[in-house]
This record gives sequence, C-alpha cells and structure tokens, in this order.
Amino acid sequence: MKLDFKHANPGLSLLPRAQEAQALLEGKSCKGAEFLGWLDLPEKALAAVAPVEEAAREIRKNHGLIVVGIGGSYLGARAVIEALSSGLPQDTSGFPVIFAGQNMDSVYHQAVLSTIRGKKYAINVISKSGTTTEPGLAFRILLSHLEANHSADEIAKLVFVTTDASKGSLRPLVKSRNWTSFIIPDDVGGRFSVLTPVGLLPIAAAGKDIRKLLEGAKSMADSIRKDTSANNLALQYACYRNAAYASGKKIELFLNYQPGLHFIAEWWKQLYGESEGKEGKGIFPASVDFSSDLHSMGQWIQEAERTLFETVIDVEKPSTDIKVPSSKVDDGLEYLAGRSLHDINRIAIAAVQDAHQEGQVPSMRILLPEMNEFHLGGLLYFFEYACAVSGIMLGVNPFDQPGVEAYKKTMFKMLGKPGA
Amino acid sequence: MKLDFKHANPGLSLLPRAQEAQALLEGKSCKGAEFLGWLDLPEKALAAVAPVEEAAREIRKNHGLIVVGIGGSYLGARAVIEALSSGLPQDTSGFPVIFAGQNMDSVYHQAVLSTIRGKKYAINVISKSGTTTEPGLAFRILLSHLEANHSADEIAKLVFVTTDASKGSLRPLVKSRNWTSFIIPDDVGGRFSVLTPVGLLPIAAAGKDIRKLLEGAKSMADSIRKDTSANNLALQYACYRNAAYASGKKIELFLNYQPGLHFIAEWWKQLYGESEGKEGKGIFPASVDFSSDLHSMGQWIQEAERTLFETVIDVEKPSTDIKVPSSKVDDGLEYLAGRSLHDINRIAIAAVQDAHQEGQVPSMRILLPEMNEFHLGGLLYFFEYACAVSGIMLGVNPFDQPGVEAYKKTMFKMLGKPGA
Repeated sequence: MKLDFKHANPGLSLLPRAQEAQALLEGKSCKGAEFLGWLDLPEKALAAVAPVEEAAREIRKNHGLIVVGIGGSYLGARAVIEALSSGLPQDTSGFPVIFAGQNMDSVYHQAVLSTIRGKKYAINVISKSGTTTEPGLAFRILLSHLEANHSADEIAKLVFVTTDASKGSLRPLVKSRNWTSFIIPDDVGGRFSVLTPVGLLPIAAAGKDIRKLLEGAKSMADSIRKDTSANNLALQYACYRNAAYASGKKIELFLNYQPGLHFIAEWWKQLYGESEGKEGKGIFPASVDFSSDLHSMGQWIQEAERTLFETVIDVEKPSTDIKVPSSKVDDGLEYLAGRSLHDINRIAIAAVQDAHQEGQVPSMRILLPEMNEFHLGGLLYFFEYACAVSGIMLGVNPFDQPGVEAYKKTMFKMLGKPGA
Repeated sequence: MKLDFKHANPGLSLLPRAQEAQALLEGKSCKGAEFLGWLDLPEKALAAVAPVEEAAREIRKNHGLIVVGIGGSYLGARAVIEALSSGLPQDTSGFPVIFAGQNMDSVYHQAVLSTIRGKKYAINVISKSGTTTEPGLAFRILLSHLEANHSADEIAKLVFVTTDASKGSLRPLVKSRNWTSFIIPDDVGGRFSVLTPVGLLPIAAAGKDIRKLLEGAKSMADSIRKDTSANNLALQYACYRNAAYASGKKIELFLNYQPGLHFIAEWWKQLYGESEGKEGKGIFPASVDFSSDLHSMGQWIQEAERTLFETVIDVEKPSTDIKVPSSKVDDGLEYLAGRSLHDINRIAIAAVQDAHQEGQVPSMRILLPEMNEFHLGGLLYFFEYACAVSGIMLGVNPFDQPGVEAYKKTMFKMLGKPGA
C-alpha cells in the first residue's frame, strides 16, 4: 500500500504533532487509553482464529446467515464482505449473508422474514449489552420465527452470539440454551472491533479468509507502530487531513470507483466521524461512489464552496477484468475497443484528480495493490491507527462517544420504557 | 404531504425572495429558462403514458431488465423502484431490475454478465447522446453478449432505447435495427427527467404504477404552481434551506428511516447539488440512513461543528408492519411487546428531532401520508419545484452544470481519444 500526495499538500509541517500523538498512543497515555485493545488485535486474533473458523464452517452448512447488529457491530463485517464481492445487489454468487437489526423498518424486516421463509438460516447476534433497541427487536422477531419452526436443540445449532464476556442480557442465554458464543473484549470500542469476532465471524461465514485479513493487518501494524518517521503511512494521512482541516477544508470526501467499496466508506465514516466529531470540532466525513456520482455530485465538487478535500481508494490490480468489445455502433468509443475496463476506470481516477486539483479540491490517493483479504486487512488497520493519531492531534478523546446517548433518553421516555 | 417546522426556523423572512423566484420561474424569465419542460411534465406525460406501459409489458415477458444509464438517466428510476420496495439487497420478490453503466468497474459488470447468463434480460439504454463513456461501454458489453446469443430479430424485441428525438448515436440504430424507442425532451435536464420515459419506463417495467406516480406529481403541481402564499410547500422548503445556509449551516443532511429510501436521497443529492453547487456557492447535500447511521454519524451530528441542518422523511402509514413479539429473553425490551415496529421507528424520528434541536441542529420533517406511487410522485415534483425556486433565490442558474465537463477533457486526452 502506498499514499500518493501529488494532488495535495501532504501537510508535513504537522509531523511533530503527529509524532507526539503517536507517542501518547503507543505509551498508552492518551485520552481513552482504556480502549486501546485494538492496537495489538491482529496478533491476538490470529492466535484465537481457529474457533471462529470452526463456527463459520458450522454456519455454512445452512442456506445462509443473518447478522444482527448495528454501528460497529455491523459496518465492519458488511464493509469487508462487500469489498470482496461485486457490489451488485442481485449478485447471488456467494454464501448469502443478510444484515438485520441495523434499522427498525417494518418493510425491511418483513422482507427479511420472506427471504428466509422455508429455508434454514443461522443467526449471528452481535451486541455487547444485548439491550440495544434495533438489534434487540430484530433478534426477538427472528428468534420467534426460529421458535415457531425448530426445536430448542435445532436452534442451539443455528444461533451464534457475539457479546460481552460476562455482562449483558445475551450471556445468560448462551449458558442456559447452549448457544455458541464469542467475546467482545472490554478494551475495544465498537468502531475498532472489525478484527474481533464481531467482524471476523460473519466475514469467515461469507467464505472470506480471515487469517489473511489478520495477517494483512498484522503486517501493517508491524510497519507503522514502530516507525516514527515521515515514511509512516498513518502519520502521513493524519497530517494530510489535519492540515486540510486547519486550512478551512471542513469536509473530507471519501472516493471509491468500485460499488463493492461503498460500505468501506460507511465503515470509515463511523470510524472518523465518531472518533473526532465532538467538542464542536471534527472534519465532516462524507462519501461518493464514483464514477457514478461524478454525474450527480461532480458539479458541486468542481465549482461550489471550496471546503472539500478528498481521499481516494485506487485498486491497482483487478480481481477480474473485461475487455471492451469492438462494435459497429457508432458511439465514439471504438478507440477503446480491446482495452481493459479496469484500466479505463483507473484513468478516470487520474483525470478526476487533475480536474479537482484544478478546482482547488486537494486529493490524496491510497494505492491498494489488489482487493484481497490481505491488503484489506492492512487498509483497515491503517485507517484505525491513523484515526487514533489524528484524533489525538485534534485534541479530542478518539475513543469515546458522549453524544450518542442524547436521543435515546428522549426516545425511551416517548416509548414509555419503565424507569425512563 | 405536510412540512413540520417545529424543530427548525422556517425562515419565512425570505418569503418575498421566494415569491420573486417563483414569479421568474413561472414567467419563464429565470436563468436557464430553456430547460423548463419539467414544469408541466406530469400532465404531458400522463397524456403519453400508454406506449410506455405497453413497452413495460413487453419487457416483463423476459426474466428481467437491465437499465443502462448514469446520473439523471439512472437515479430517478432507481430511487422510485427502491422506495416502493424493501431496500433489502437479497429481496427477490419483484421483477428483477439491474442497473449497469453507472460505473466502469470490471468486477461489477462481470457480476452483471454472470447474473444474466442463460436468462433472457431486456435492456433499456438511456442516454441523450449515446456517447457517454460509462453507459456507452456497458451497452457495448451487453449488446455484444446479446449478439452472441440471439438473432437480430430477437434482439429487436429485447432492446429499448431512450434517447434524443433526432440527434446522438442511438437514434440511427433505432431506425436501422428496428428497436423500440422513447424520446428525452430537449427542454428537460437529466436531473429533472424522472417523469419522462427516462424514469417512467424502468419504473413501469418494475411493476410500479406510473399513472399514479404522474397523478401524484400533477396533484402537487396543481397545488404549488399557482399558490404564491406562505402555505406553498415548495416556497416553505426553499425559505427554510436558504435561511439555514445564510446563517452558516453549510451542510444539509437528508434523513430517511427506511432502507428503501436510500436512493431517494441519492436522487435528491444530484438534484440539489448539481442545481445549486456553482460559482463558489451551494449547500453541501449529504445523507444518512437512520436509525442505522445514528450508530455511526450520530456522534458527529450531535456534538461536532454546528454546520448542519436536516430534512427528514417521515412516512405516516406503513405499507406493511410487524408486531414486536413477546419473549422470554431478558433484553429489557418486553415493554415493547405487542407494539408496532413502524410506530417505534416513528417515535425514534421524533426523539432524534428533539435531541438534534437541543444540539443546535435544526430539523424539518416532511410527512408523507404513505409510501405509494401517488405520494412519491408528489414528493418528486415538490423537490424539483422547490429546487428551482431555491436555486433562483441563491442567484445561480439551477439548470446548467458547467463544471461536469472538467475531468472529461483530461480523461479523453489520457485515454487517447481521437481529437482530444
């Protein structure tokens, strides 16, 4: 993996501050230091990967899997699974993984029930407390569906729980009902949990290689944790975005050119938005799916308020390619006949970087050698580490989320929750 | 449909400017007046709906439809079709409509080819010029696939073209190959074209009622075009957002609480972003899918920079509902047993509005009586009309897009296009 700053100010004048932030992080003396379990997770998770793989094999004996989770218990798994797929909604080539409990829409959950009717789907419910409203309601609905169709023994083979080691409402059920379970560590926050069983079990169940994912993350950790120089990719990214922000670029636009990467952007938005958006500060994390959105948001980006900077994912080697066919249709595109579609897509990336720089939108490119588990693992760890450094540079606690409870208090009262 | 301003400043001090903008629009004396064909489109399209319905019936004799288009030739159809569906990717309950040519990803298009292999899919290619790179390449790939598997006569029954009346590369083919075709009017820009055959044909092919869609649009047009008072919903929305923008709220966040509405937000982003984002001005249009993204972007919204205002879609009557089952699981949610999931979801909307207002994020709610074709048609027209008024108030030409060509010049040169 490489970062390309040809179309942006790398902001290396901030390097001393980034190095200081890194020292606080590695010295575990930053704010929120009780949540640094993710730092050496790649190595720890590799040592404990076998039971996760074993559970994934059990899950794959069924027709499919429903993952019940929200926020950090949802986005990481979905991001990795979709990044290693095509992004086409109708693509049925893999083992079906359905996400539920990330919303409370009756139409959506009715469709989930219709889709699994008459089939045998495993359920992986992911929640530290077990009482979060959205996944809690979905799990009720799905468990009630299972109970109507299966014996307790059968259900015990279908339900996989990822939750707190001892606390919460799900742990006692694991014991009394003999369900398979995995632990969400106390020292890893939700948005940093993709490399715990929270992310690993659904990803493995989808048929992806979680060992390679962890190896890629470990390789990235090995390379950036000890490096305090300007060569450190995570420090580079932290400098780039903090310098852009300080210069009045208030919105970071995350660009992908492959529909499969849409949820990498969503995962990235939670990571950075929730880590930095507090105390009246924080870059607004936004995303577009290119080249599609060049034909919708392209105008705004090129000519509206000059408040944007960009981070682009550019995948060098395609996992599959298409040669543009020759055609008698006079569409002005015959000069592209015989060319690789992937190459054309990458040329669009380069051209857009030029045009946006011209329009005063700085643009940094992350070159990913290939879209596979290894490089994806490295990318995830890179983003996590850079996020921690960046948040510390900003002066906030990157590991808390004091604002997410605000609406819940009102909601519980409106819903008539006892004691609210 | 109603707008609720209880959690926002309606900005009615701007009403005179909105009325002035409306007068320029209705008098066809605003900038870009050559592109006002969408104003009386509901009525005109209703009169010409039969051939579109007839073509849709032909399309539905096949296994599915591939829609080839990008930007305004893509988002409207996808937005309406998904809004009237569940938003669950694995939902296979309707007639399959696959979107292609809205990106140049080889992995995605390879998956399209795999999905249609051995099946009979119709193609609706939508492009005014026929030479836009993304849909042009996809159409080449798909036509070459058809030609390998079908005779010219068979292909003539499978290809449906929506293009310019006389110009462009597709029109001659329609004639020489006897393909069915529809016209993109000259006086309707891409982002305002959902109620032309651009949007109507795919929507009808998906089995949705385009007469009701147009009737809803017409009903909205009848109510807002003549009304110059403060009761006019479109003027209200235009005032609200321009007042928020003038007060330093630079980002408009479009909120939905149903996954099916995700692409309504994408359509809305093109409409407003492309219409207003020019000359260094324009609100940045962003979107979140709630309640999911409360667990990712919720922190930022509640406590980061105070630069946001919100527009929320609240659907009053659900098209289907689920009663929360009673459960022996001690998840703290038993107080919700027997309640309607849709009601709970709507209570979340109200609670979030309270919390965000508390956090200085104004929030305006659009109450849609029901998610059906009629009300959706009204919503689309409302947004178009309000967008025109809002853009005129901002002082820009809401109907041009001078910035979208910038990257193409460079791209064509890099690709080695003859003459570039």
